[in-house]
Amino acid sequence: MEAYLDNSATTPVCPEAVKAVNNVLTNYWGNPSSLHYGGIEAAQVLDNARHSIARTLSCDDDEIIFTSGGTEANNLAVFGAAHAYRSRGMRIIISSVEHPSVNEPVNQLEKQGYDVIRLHTDKEGRFDERQLLAAVNSATSLISIMAVNNEVGTIQAVEKIKQAVRRFNAPALIHCDAVQAFGKIPLKPSALGIDLMTVSSHKIHGPKGAGALYVRKGVKIAPHIFGGGQEQGRRPGTEPLPAIAGFAAAADALPDIRIQLEKTTQLRDYMLGRLSELNNIVVNSPEDALPYVTNISVLGIPSEVMLNYLSEMNVYVSGGSACSKGKRSRVLSAMNLEQERINSAIRISFSRYTTKAEIDYLIEGISSAQKSIMKRTFK
Amino acid sequence: MEAYLDNSATTPVCPEAVKAVNNVLTNYWGNPSSLHYGGIEAAQVLDNARHSIARTLSCDDDEIIFTSGGTEANNLAVFGAAHAYRSRGMRIIISSVEHPSVNEPVNQLEKQGYDVIRLHTDKEGRFDERQLLAAVNSATSLISIMAVNNEVGTIQAVEKIKQAVRRFNAPALIHCDAVQAFGKIPLKPSALGIDLMTVSSHKIHGPKGAGALYVRKGVKIAPHIFGGGQEQGRRPGTEPLPAIAGFAAAADALPDIRIQLEKTTQLRDYMLGRLSELNNIVVNSPEDALPYVTNISVLGIPSEVMLNYLSEMNVYVSGGSACSKGKRSRVLSAMNLEQERINSAIRISFSRYTTKAEIDYLIEGISSAQKSIMKRTFK
Repeated sequence: MEAYLDNSATTPVCPEAVKAVNNVLTNYWGNPSSLHYGGIEAAQVLDNARHSIARTLSCDDDEIIFTSGGTEANNLAVFGAAHAYRSRGMRIIISSVEHPSVNEPVNQLEKQGYDVIRLHTDKEGRFDERQLLAAVNSATSLISIMAVNNEVGTIQAVEKIKQAVRRFNAPALIHCDAVQAFGKIPLKPSALGIDLMTVSSHKIHGPKGAGALYVRKGVKIAPHIFGGGQEQGRRPGTEPLPAIAGFAAAADALPDIRIQLEKTTQLRDYMLGRLSELNNIVVNSPEDALPYVTNISVLGIPSEVMLNYLSEMNVYVSGGSACSKGKRSRVLSAMNLEQERINSAIRISFSRYTTKAEIDYLIEGISSAQKSIMKRTFK
Repeated sequence: MEAYLDNSATTPVCPEAVKAVNNVLTNYWGNPSSLHYGGIEAAQVLDNARHSIARTLSCDDDEIIFTSGGTEANNLAVFGAAHAYRSRGMRIIISSVEHPSVNEPVNQLEKQGYDVIRLHTDKEGRFDERQLLAAVNSATSLISIMAVNNEVGTIQAVEKIKQAVRRFNAPALIHCDAVQAFGKIPLKPSALGIDLMTVSSHKIHGPKGAGALYVRKGVKIAPHIFGGGQEQGRRPGTEPLPAIAGFAAAADALPDIRIQLEKTTQLRDYMLGRLSELNNIVVNSPEDALPYVTNISVLGIPSEVMLNYLSEMNVYVSGGSACSKGKRSRVLSAMNLEQERINSAIRISFSRYTTKAEIDYLIEGISSAQKSIMKRTFK
């Protein structure tokens, strides 16, 4: 038995994506920038892929800029907006629970003299809306808040940001890191009042090595990588066509988002029920979190110990995010949780392939860990 | 019949690379940063790939930083060196025939106040060594010169740069864009006195979406993308493992470089012989160019017209580089060629899969184009 419950770190690649990658490797290996037939065919594959991603965001094809992944798209959004809007204002507002690929670029900008406000969150990871209203001013050039938190699944009220911007007539661009939300909740950036939105392939059963940044029509951002004229000059470099085609195939293969959300909610509720049979479990995710991500603490057992124990049983979960590789969670710290909860936190994350049997096996694993580790500890 | 003679733009993916990509997509889709078994296995694939690339450059594994491709590696080298060495000096020296992914980042740095020297080239595209000696000073922080020119195949004397740096005791890092040279001529950056070297997967029959920057042990460069701690913090973001594994498999599948170079030289000489049977052909590449790249002008026929004519016959060549998409060649202009030669230039580029039959078909195509287009023109 095996239970892969670390889908927020990465997902298994769906057969549709594998097929699409192979098709490109074998039949469409031309350079999309080449002017001959071999290039034109590859450019057609690129156009089709762009259309697939645009469709999932209900936007126009030319609003999609392909990148090498979510991290690069977040860097392009943050640096690109800050540099393009520098003359309009140097205030940047983010939440204190952003992914490192937003947080670190903003730290760099702060060193360059930008004025950075980091919004506090409540115990459930929600950014402070009143603080946002107080922070937005006429010198605010960028507000970046994620759609769904990667460690606890909190759904942020990103649709509220536009109101704050309007109210103070700020020149700000609004960026939303939607890597964990994409394909899981309906996302239409134009309806949410969002100018820039990051999505990634390998979190929706596509291959690693592709992502995209939605850039609302008319919005100008500075490139972050410079070279040839690819992606409207906003992201030069020969396009990673195999991964892009796989990304598009994975997007096309997404099931109906609302139906899948309902199924996943039932599965999550089943898991919470089973977890309540155990002792010393605290749920760190809010009740209305995205059901794909559940953060819990198994009090008394350090995250790494639990992780290793479960891994030995072929149950795969994570402590915090994969990107922070075992460091203490910045997100749970920002949520102001007690140290004991932070130290014993694990993240369980689902995909559409997750089964009840996997959850039962996880529960068996946690229960067995509690018995065996507690025994060792108190021997 | 078909003749793909645009291998400097991109190469067909070799079966070994296709197999490696599939193996990762199917069996090693874990996140290399995950601490559980699924992640550890993926990290092992990443380590093995790093070893393969390091072996081809005769360097240590931890001197290889994976990127999304050549463009990103060149950006990382240029910005990374300039920013890390800013306090030591703000002079940057490049040749006037660098790829846009070196040239454009340097243009950005110039706007930021860096003092940029662009070395002239002779009629054969070689950088001016005397000008280099005159340009290097104690405030020189970066010298970036490509190993082989992408449009004409000129092999640059990059091994001479280190002497110039030593002579003036400059603090400069030496970067070499070796995208067109990698896998085609022996490259050992440490023996060449090079600190940073860019290589790319899709020019050696690997998939698009992976490249690497060699960073000599002890050399510090600033990251260009910020986020998690991947690639020693120098290139954060989940690694594009399918493309990286394909890149490594393509590197492992490279034939003996010297034997293949000899074969390719014979093929190139055969082509030059056949071309000499035609009228109005001028060879723009130097005699001692890398035999994989030959730039010629078919006088009287504009590049695009020839390109389209040949494309109709399934003969694929390019006018200049794919990245500049039909714009007039900056390289040939820097070489100070007559306007007529620039306007009618095409690049014919080989791979180890190129055959005599393809060359015969190309000659047939050019000859036929000359007859048909000339006839149209003078009708």
